[in-house]
Amino acid sequence: MKKIDANPPSGTRDFLPEEVKLREAVFSTVKKVFESFGFLPLETPAFERLEVLSGKYGEEGEKLIYKILKRGEGETRGETDLALRYDFTIPLARVVAKYRDKLPTIFKRYQIGPVWRAERPQAGRFREFAQCDADIVGTKSRLADAEIILVLAAVLKKLGLPRFSVRLNSRKVLSGLMEIYKVPRKLEKSVFIALDKLDKVGVVGVKKELLKRGLKEKLISQITEDAKNFNPESLRRKLKKSKAGQEGLNDIDEISGFVSPNLGGASLVFSPFLARGLDYYTGPIFEIAAVGSNSSIAGGGRYDNLIGMFSRTSTPACGGSLGIERIISILEKSKKLKSEEIWAKVLVTVWDKSFQAESLKLAMELREKGIATEVYLGEGAISRQLSFASKNNIPYCVIFGPKEKANGEVAVKSLETGGQKNFSKDNLPSFLRGK
Amino acid sequence: MKKIDANPPSGTRDFLPEEVKLREAVFSTVKKVFESFGFLPLETPAFERLEVLSGKYGEEGEKLIYKILKRGEGETRGETDLALRYDFTIPLARVVAKYRDKLPTIFKRYQIGPVWRAERPQAGRFREFAQCDADIVGTKSRLADAEIILVLAAVLKKLGLPRFSVRLNSRKVLSGLMEIYKVPRKLEKSVFIALDKLDKVGVVGVKKELLKRGLKEKLISQITEDAKNFNPESLRRKLKKSKAGQEGLNDIDEISGFVSPNLGGASLVFSPFLARGLDYYTGPIFEIAAVGSNSSIAGGGRYDNLIGMFSRTSTPACGGSLGIERIISILEKSKKLKSEEIWAKVLVTVWDKSFQAESLKLAMELREKGIATEVYLGEGAISRQLSFASKNNIPYCVIFGPKEKANGEVAVKSLETGGQKNFSKDNLPSFLRGK
Repeated sequence: MKKIDANPPSGTRDFLPEEVKLREAVFSTVKKVFESFGFLPLETPAFERLEVLSGKYGEEGEKLIYKILKRGEGETRGETDLALRYDFTIPLARVVAKYRDKLPTIFKRYQIGPVWRAERPQAGRFREFAQCDADIVGTKSRLADAEIILVLAAVLKKLGLPRFSVRLNSRKVLSGLMEIYKVPRKLEKSVFIALDKLDKVGVVGVKKELLKRGLKEKLISQITEDAKNFNPESLRRKLKKSKAGQEGLNDIDEISGFVSPNLGGASLVFSPFLARGLDYYTGPIFEIAAVGSNSSIAGGGRYDNLIGMFSRTSTPACGGSLGIERIISILEKSKKLKSEEIWAKVLVTVWDKSFQAESLKLAMELREKGIATEVYLGEGAISRQLSFASKNNIPYCVIFGPKEKANGEVAVKSLETGGQKNFSKDNLPSFLRGK
Repeated sequence: MKKIDANPPSGTRDFLPEEVKLREAVFSTVKKVFESFGFLPLETPAFERLEVLSGKYGEEGEKLIYKILKRGEGETRGETDLALRYDFTIPLARVVAKYRDKLPTIFKRYQIGPVWRAERPQAGRFREFAQCDADIVGTKSRLADAEIILVLAAVLKKLGLPRFSVRLNSRKVLSGLMEIYKVPRKLEKSVFIALDKLDKVGVVGVKKELLKRGLKEKLISQITEDAKNFNPESLRRKLKKSKAGQEGLNDIDEISGFVSPNLGGASLVFSPFLARGLDYYTGPIFEIAAVGSNSSIAGGGRYDNLIGMFSRTSTPACGGSLGIERIISILEKSKKLKSEEIWAKVLVTVWDKSFQAESLKLAMELREKGIATEVYLGEGAISRQLSFASKNNIPYCVIFGPKEKANGEVAVKSLETGGQKNFSKDNLPSFLRGK
């Protein structure tokens, strides 16, 4: 039989035990901070009906959706009806529409887990990756926008990344700017999306894209130059002349007033050209970047019209998401990741076949006392078993052979010190637990 | 715009906060017991390359695999390259083949998470459901088979289901039986698969299936009658005459000797006609059923040839899986599920808009002291805010209005007793933490 390729699919990863434990430690911190703010957990299926996801992520996002083939006859025709979830926001909107009466009037939910996007695989970018989202549904209060920023900031601090800066803007500020620049209404979104890529593709890339969309070259130059280098005070003055611009400034000022005093050492700056790529934002938007890094490690915003797509009543909402894979990789590089011990504390060795049942029983007794215990399952002399324990970071070996049995005892060998000591079976659990 | 259907896809479920917490409590118990036996966590992608899953689950399993459409040009041609994972055993085999040198020589791993099968949706059967697997790779020792049964049994006890019975068999016993019945070699697997369905489809169903496969009616009658009603002693005598049969009996006797003394109140019985549906089993197999229920809540077996499909060296392995969805539903019915508190302990109310920033700051201080705290994000009088807390099971409300501010105090209202008491801001955290 042909040997099958043992690699995971391109863009995905296997996590071996130590990596699982490191990642779990991060997710558990995120969860604890989310819950300390009163966010509640929600879980939705890995796939959604295709119509739920279609048309929500813009032209480019749409191409990255993994579609699932129909079963039965539809399969042979290449038809699809389901798609892997692309984020947690659309599933949240669906859930709120469906279970409105069962949920608190102001619903603060978090969701942690994998999402899937068919990105071109490259260093640090994956097709299966974890997201950690916190959202607040049911209120237009700017306190809610502030809470989203504060909860993500609290997670970053708790994870040991206190040096970051929050860039804050509002889609209304952007609309005000478009008025000022006299950008035709139908090109507004294209400009937002192009601006969102300014850091990645540079001025030349943005120009190219906007020319293609039909914006005049002179206007593009003015926008990209201002985006790189603007005078905050004169910009504010201009914005105040536009209704949308004034509302956007109110967003910024009120949210800054809530957030800044609670940020500790981190900073918040008004970034009038920050756009964010998604179609559905309607108000305040933000991104968080670690100091010394250009790329964002968290972001979010307000989307007051999204949930209305699934229900007849419109429901305001805002939320944010941690770029947790990037955060984990920063923590790994700075050696800040710690996790609980993963190895068993004790290996019960097996003297020979005639001792198997008794050794197993001994292990079962230790496990019942709460001590993580392995029993040696291979074949080989005690020396080989000791070296198995040592290789696998198990600090203690219990030896139970004919001599120990005759004396009603067990021997315990410490692999750190090499020392060995005898115990009665009754005293063994308390000795090991004390270690 | 057309309103979009807000239901999750057929056969899948949304889990609202209280359900998430109940399920998490179960998974956390499973994990703790697995780790107390020295099993280590592994995580693999939600999808695998199609060739990894194809041809592993038998004719009927194959139809239940969710296939993912290729991206780009292949999409329009309806081509597939990936498929959602169907279980954790095949991914384990792939991982062992790939990372052999990084793993312990005897690798005990567990994996907990969702798998996907395109089953016909029906009560209690889902298309997305959780599995909890424990497997031991790298040893032929029957101690390992015993450990698998014991770890699953330990989970069931810890979950509050101590009354269950383990049915034990070996594929070698079944091979011995096929020799005795003179079933043609090429029909052996069909007989195993048909026997596996005996409980579900009854004697008539099994007969029909085996007739179709070409087995003689008289032979089928004899097998199904024996399966329903056999004399253990005479069956043992017959099996001893076959080499496979004798080896199978050795499996049973040795494993029973290891397991039975450690089962507590549960029982283990030799079930010579137990077959299990999967192709890849090679030795001991078992199922666990709760007392008073016919359907199995756990099962597994030895599969010594599977990992060899992914690597040149053959690697023995055995494992088992908990039917955790069924277990959760039994626990729910018997009201045995408990979970940690999910609601915040405190709601910081907001007197009016001018108090928003100060109330938020107060909440942030409580959160930093480890107290799960909400701040009211809606609009409305204090009475409305108190009723929000009460509806959402938040036991304490902090009130901070002009009077409290003037006195340098905060008021705390208990929603259980209705009582209200004033504190200095400094004393507030320790009071709330004590509650």
